Order: sequence, then C-alpha cells, then structure tokens
Amino acid sequence: MTDVDALLDRVRDRLRTPASCGVPRVDGVVADALRPGKLLRPAMVVRSAAAAGADLAAAEVRHAVVEAALATELLHVATLVHDDIIDGADLRRGRASVVAQAGLSTAIVVGDLLLARGSAAAAASAPGVSTVWARALDLMAAGQLHEGELVDLPSLAAQAEYASLKTAELFRSSAEAGALAAGADAGVVAAHGRYGLHFGRAFQHVDDLLDRYGDPALTGKPTGADARNGVPTRLSLVPDGRGVDEVLELVVSELREARSSLPPAASAWGCWGVEALARATLVVLDDADPEVTARVATAFGRLEPAPHHPRTETQPCLDTRHHSCPHDVSA
Amino acid sequence: MTDVDALLDRVRDRLRTPASCGVPRVDGVVADALRPGKLLRPAMVVRSAAAAGADLAAAEVRHAVVEAALATELLHVATLVHDDIIDGADLRRGRASVVAQAGLSTAIVVGDLLLARGSAAAAASAPGVSTVWARALDLMAAGQLHEGELVDLPSLAAQAEYASLKTAELFRSSAEAGALAAGADAGVVAAHGRYGLHFGRAFQHVDDLLDRYGDPALTGKPTGADARNGVPTRLSLVPDGRGVDEVLELVVSELREARSSLPPAASAWGCWGVEALARATLVVLDDADPEVTARVATAFGRLEPAPHHPRTETQPCLDTRHHSCPHDVSA
Repeated sequence: MTDVDALLDRVRDRLRTPASCGVPRVDGVVADALRPGKLLRPAMVVRSAAAAGADLAAAEVRHAVVEAALATELLHVATLVHDDIIDGADLRRGRASVVAQAGLSTAIVVGDLLLARGSAAAAASAPGVSTVWARALDLMAAGQLHEGELVDLPSLAAQAEYASLKTAELFRSSAEAGALAAGADAGVVAAHGRYGLHFGRAFQHVDDLLDRYGDPALTGKPTGADARNGVPTRLSLVPDGRGVDEVLELVVSELREARSSLPPAASAWGCWGVEALARATLVVLDDADPEVTARVATAFGRLEPAPHHPRTETQPCLDTRHHSCPHDVSA
Repeated sequence: MTDVDALLDRVRDRLRTPASCGVPRVDGVVADALRPGKLLRPAMVVRSAAAAGADLAAAEVRHAVVEAALATELLHVATLVHDDIIDGADLRRGRASVVAQAGLSTAIVVGDLLLARGSAAAAASAPGVSTVWARALDLMAAGQLHEGELVDLPSLAAQAEYASLKTAELFRSSAEAGALAAGADAGVVAAHGRYGLHFGRAFQHVDDLLDRYGDPALTGKPTGADARNGVPTRLSLVPDGRGVDEVLELVVSELREARSSLPPAASAWGCWGVEALARATLVVLDDADPEVTARVATAFGRLEPAPHHPRTETQPCLDTRHHSCPHDVSA
C-alpha cells in the first residue's frame, strides 16, 4: 500500500468513527452522513501534500495531512447536509438525506456540528489550514447565495461564477491545505491551489453531465435534480445538440490549465487528477447512452501526460479502453 | 476612553462594516443581523485579555484580541440566525429575524457565511483560538441537539446540561480566547474559562427570568418564547411560587463560583461580570412587576466584591440603587 493510500485509509477510518454528540438518535444520522464516498477532496489534500514533497515518514506531517483531509471532507458533507434542505433533496449517496431522515431542525444543527468538527480538524492541522478552510466555507456560502440571481437571470458568466464558488473553491482549498500540511512555501501553495481550482471547475462540468446522463444507481441521486430545482447548468444554457461537446471542451481546457499550473515536481499528480475525474465519470455514465460515454472517453483520451510525467510522451494520461473496471475512483 | 472600550469600539466598527458576499440583497440582511447588540461575549474576550495582562499597547496583541472578540460574536450571531429558523422566531433584537426577512434557504446560508467569517477571525487571532472556537460551536450544536430529549423528558439535570452547552460554553470559549490572545499560560486560560462557564450559566438563568418577566420593547423579542416552543427552563421546572427565588439563588451561586475561579490578578474582572449581568438584567425587567425587579436587585446586591478588588471590602460589587440609568451594559 502506498503512503497516499494508507493516509486515505486513516481518513476513512476517522470518518467511520465520529465522536458522539450525546444523542444516540443523532449519532446514527451523523454516522450515516459521513459514510465515506469517493473521498475526492481528501485525495486532493493527500496527493497535494505528497506532490509538495511532504515527509510522510514523519508522524507530525502525517497527522497534519490527515487532519487537513478530514477538515475538507467534513466541510463538504456539512454543506451537502444544508444543500439538501435547500434543494428538498431526499436522497444522498443512495440513502435518505439527513433532512429526510431527521427533519429540518436536526439537519440544520447536524450541518453546524460537522462544520465545528471540520474547523477543529483544520485547527489541528498546520498553520494556515484554518484560514484556507474558512475561506472555502465563505466562498461556498457566497456561491449558494448567488443561486437566486442565477435562477432569475441565467447567463454563462453567472453560471461559471456560481460553479466556481460553490464547487471549485473547495478543491482549491483542499490542494492548498495539503501543501500547507507538507510545509510547502507560499509559491507552491498558490500553484497547487490554482491546480485545485481548475480541477474543481472541470469537476463541476462533469457533475453537470452526470446530473443529466449519470446512472442514478451509481451516482446515488436522481438525475435531473438541477433542472427540477431550476438552477441552470452550463449544459442547460447552450442549445441541446451542442451542449455535451461544449461542456467536454471546457473540461479538457480546465484540466489542461490545471496541469499547467503545477511545478514540474508535481506533474505526476496532475495526471492523477485527469485519471480520477475520468474514472469517476465513466463509472457512473448511464450505459443507456453509449454515444455520450464514447464522447466523454474520447475527450479525456485527448489529454496527453504532462511533460515531466514518467510515462512515455506519446501515451495519454488515461487508457480509456479500461474504463469498465474502475473500482479505485477514490485513489 | 479605556483600552477595553477602545477595543470594543473597534469590534463594533468591524461588525458594522461586513465584507460583501456579492449579492446586495443578502448584504443588507447580513448587516442587519450583525448590528451590534450588548456585545457581552466580545466584552468577555476583551476583559479576559486585559485581566490576563495583555500588552494592549502592542498592535499585534490588540489585533489578536479584536479578532478573537469578532470570532466569538460572529459565532453567536450565526447560531441565533439558525436558532430563529428552528424556533420559528420572527423577531430578533427588535427587528425581523433573518429567516423572517429572507426565507429559510437564505437564512441557512447566511448562518454558514457568518460561521465562515467567525472561523476566519479565530484563525487570524492567536494560536489556540481556532480550537476553542470550534469546540464552542461543537458543544452549542450538541446542546441544541439535546433540545428534543429535554422537551420529551424534562428534568433539572437535563435542563442544566442543555443550558450549559447551548449558552455557557460560548462564554467559556470567549474567556479562554481572550486569555489566549493575551498570550497567557495554560493555567490562566483554563481559570478564565471556568469563570466564563459559570458566568455563562448565571447568564442563562437570568435569560430565563427575562423570557418571562422582561420588557419586550427592551429585550427585542417577545416574552414567553421558551414556553411557546415547549422548551423547559429552570423557572418552568419548579413550582410557580418558588421559581424566581430558586433561579436567583442559582445566579448568585454561579457568579460566586465564577469569581472564585479567577486568580487574584483578575478579581476586578470578576466584579465586572456581576455588574454587567446585573445591569443587563435590571435594564430590561418589566416595570410592570416591581416586586420581581426588587428581588433581582437584592440578589445581585448580595454579591460582595472579590477580596482583592480595589473597592472597600464592605461595598458590594454593584450599587443597585442606580439601576435605572444603565446605558453602558456592554462595557
């Protein structure tokens, strides 16, 4: 097992054993909300730390990395709990959402409890992690507050701003937190943050595709939720025939920009992002629309490895022929 | 103007000029929610720092103290915003609550935004402040989650636990944060925390009295809210005739315990707590029930000054004859 996998296992174990809040009924709801999903954000933290040269043999560095990864996942789950109230969403990760299980009041406070735990984990990590954690929550809340304006006056620019704040900023913060936990200097932290931000924008575009074409049994939520809530996505803002290709074009260009943000020492990490996102996408695309699946595979296949990546120059990051056995989407 | 007053003025100014979230309609709601009230928790932070010997001539110490004070007030207001959703409360500080002004979704996210800002302020303060800030939010959320059990199975013990978590822990955290911002050692931080905790319990008992006897025009919220929400208070758990005296007995004993927690160097601060709480109480007691007002004044009057307080030993902390001109309840 690699260092990265071992640290992600520790994150997974911690998420599975949350501290009690003193009310058994609520403890069950909290444990359910924290059941580990893909752990894409913790993976961003841990891989950013590794790419920044973290000394993962040192116990205090491992501690700082794991706390930063937990902080970011707890923040993510907390905002999902509150989002599901706002969206009236009954399903999350294939199970009843917190609001569906426990009602409005408990869901509000469970979200706050998870924010408290995330904030504590950030504080227990390394200097600077609390600051990027708080900024992520601030910008995610601002993004959510922009939703009403986006619904009232949809535009490509407003949608891009909304998606960047609500989704991509947490990936930026995750990448920065990993670099901070590694003790990286400010330049590396910022470069990793740019990688995270562009990766996060690509992720959001992919998520929009999955909202329309994903297999609900695999995404754990019904398709078409954005449309039902009246929140425009990039896909809904362009004419039907062109949407998928235009969104895939954006995914490829964001991922290229993400990788070009990285210092040479971190280029293998850049390739990981492409692979992780491609796998996460192809796994859950509905087999009912093989044409969309093929277009997605082709788009990801166009992404060549970064210049300093140890693979041969002509080999793409991802061998898309193997997309049907991708159990390791969280790696 | 004393150093303490000057710092509280800075806190007040910062609360009056929150950063924009990018949505003007929401900025108005946020500004309204943050309109400075009594600032009892920021005063706890600033006075704890002063009592711990903070070098208030040093710019970085003043910065740390102000950020800690802001962090604690932002946390307080954020939880009020969420509480008002849960309680269906339309009024807060004499104005429409955030949920009444802006609806459920916006109120949830405004609360989260304020938590983000509070977390950022804690991170910008001094080492350790983020940790006590996060613990306060955690315990306050746990307290709120206990509410259902308290309603279902009321008892004196359950009510005391609920009030301690939901209200007193933030005063503990405030006192600790002030000492941390002052650079105090762990023993002083813990002693100040105990002071804050007992003060906070006294405060909650007083708040229960005000919920029944306060003048709504002065408390800014209707009386009887606890009873309407079915949440037992200490006052409601004992027979009618005995309630007020029993609660006042608890107030006096908590304030005595608070003061006895403090090191001699901080005894003047201990007297401040008595005065601030007495003034805040007597100001808003309904003149319609002068008998209750007189009993409260008598109870507070029983609190002698701390042994090392510069006043004469025989003079009580508070001259209760002057309770009718108390504009300075936040000082």
